[in-house]
Amino acid sequence: MAQWTPTFYSFLTMTIPYPSPPTVLFCSQCGTATEQRIPPDDSRLRAVCPVCQHIHYDNPKTVVGTIPVLGDKILLCKRGIEPGYAMWTLPAGFMECGEGLAQGAARETLEEALATVEVIEPVYSLVDIPHIGQTHVFFRANLQEGDFGAGHETLEVALFALDEIPWDDIAFNSVRITLQAFLADVARGEFVTRHHVRTLDSM
Amino acid sequence: MAQWTPTFYSFLTMTIPYPSPPTVLFCSQCGTATEQRIPPDDSRLRAVCPVCQHIHYDNPKTVVGTIPVLGDKILLCKRGIEPGYAMWTLPAGFMECGEGLAQGAARETLEEALATVEVIEPVYSLVDIPHIGQTHVFFRANLQEGDFGAGHETLEVALFALDEIPWDDIAFNSVRITLQAFLADVARGEFVTRHHVRTLDSM
Repeated sequence: MAQWTPTFYSFLTMTIPYPSPPTVLFCSQCGTATEQRIPPDDSRLRAVCPVCQHIHYDNPKTVVGTIPVLGDKILLCKRGIEPGYAMWTLPAGFMECGEGLAQGAARETLEEALATVEVIEPVYSLVDIPHIGQTHVFFRANLQEGDFGAGHETLEVALFALDEIPWDDIAFNSVRITLQAFLADVARGEFVTRHHVRTLDSM
Repeated sequence: MAQWTPTFYSFLTMTIPYPSPPTVLFCSQCGTATEQRIPPDDSRLRAVCPVCQHIHYDNPKTVVGTIPVLGDKILLCKRGIEPGYAMWTLPAGFMECGEGLAQGAARETLEEALATVEVIEPVYSLVDIPHIGQTHVFFRANLQEGDFGAGHETLEVALFALDEIPWDDIAFNSVRITLQAFLADVARGEFVTRHHVRTLDSM
């Protein structure tokens, strides 16, 4: 599923300040043009319907993915779609209603890397990207020999030793800092949940 | 901010299966009545505009909150709004675009408990509730003596020793299991990130 992807939003928000498009221009319940208004007992502008009074909340989205591990190597996917076409990434995508974080991460890994992974709890890396309204959540996961391939949004998949990671060709900053943390944790022999915040300044 | 709150959804989804309301009946971009369709390269029904082709994704929402700790007590809020009116809860609410998880948790604590807390990293408790499309994320946080009170959605706030928690009057299951985990971790003297999934069967 293509949807609005991290880098696309990033490009937009480099020049257009928050709140970013797409906005709710018409009421989802009755089709009337909405107005930007601060509802009673609220402190933020929301798209409000002047006819049926429906309030449209625009909340952050969660991206879920895995670090698929096989022995001393990890699996990366070369992206077959924009943004980041032909760049390398961890298998990840938007969490869907009806699934949990780990379930979504496993589903995305199956879709993008055709791999049925065993997800390792708890959450390994959380990356908040407030200016694009997203939190990216990665789990470590165990991969099976031969049980992977390129999904329909992926050009190819490949196993990389940790000293072979193509740092210059990583598609997303959240993937980069998650991999950097992973390498540090492998080096010291202990994995801990890490929470990063990436603002426009730190990107 | 009232918005769609966990228990409200829970009541709905006890009788109405996923996907739960509200749905996008009209296109947010042009106001045309939408159709339920599986877009190309997708596998799920989405509300799609037959005129401008805009696809409306309905992704899970993140609820953020804290366990505010002062000495050997924690702060709970007695809810002043439905759902769970007059029941006790941890300060929590929907994460907003433009903020990170910890920032949102601190904001909700300020709004509901008038407390400026120091949030403790990393994330303490994650509770997926797939059938209502939500993930609830709680941080431990340090509270200051006297620096709290009832926000406008709160009837009262009170400090509770861990053997005084009003288990029979806790508003939300995610709060209950987070507090249960907290007590277990206090007892063994170590806090670890915990990830729970609550389905209709386990609720």
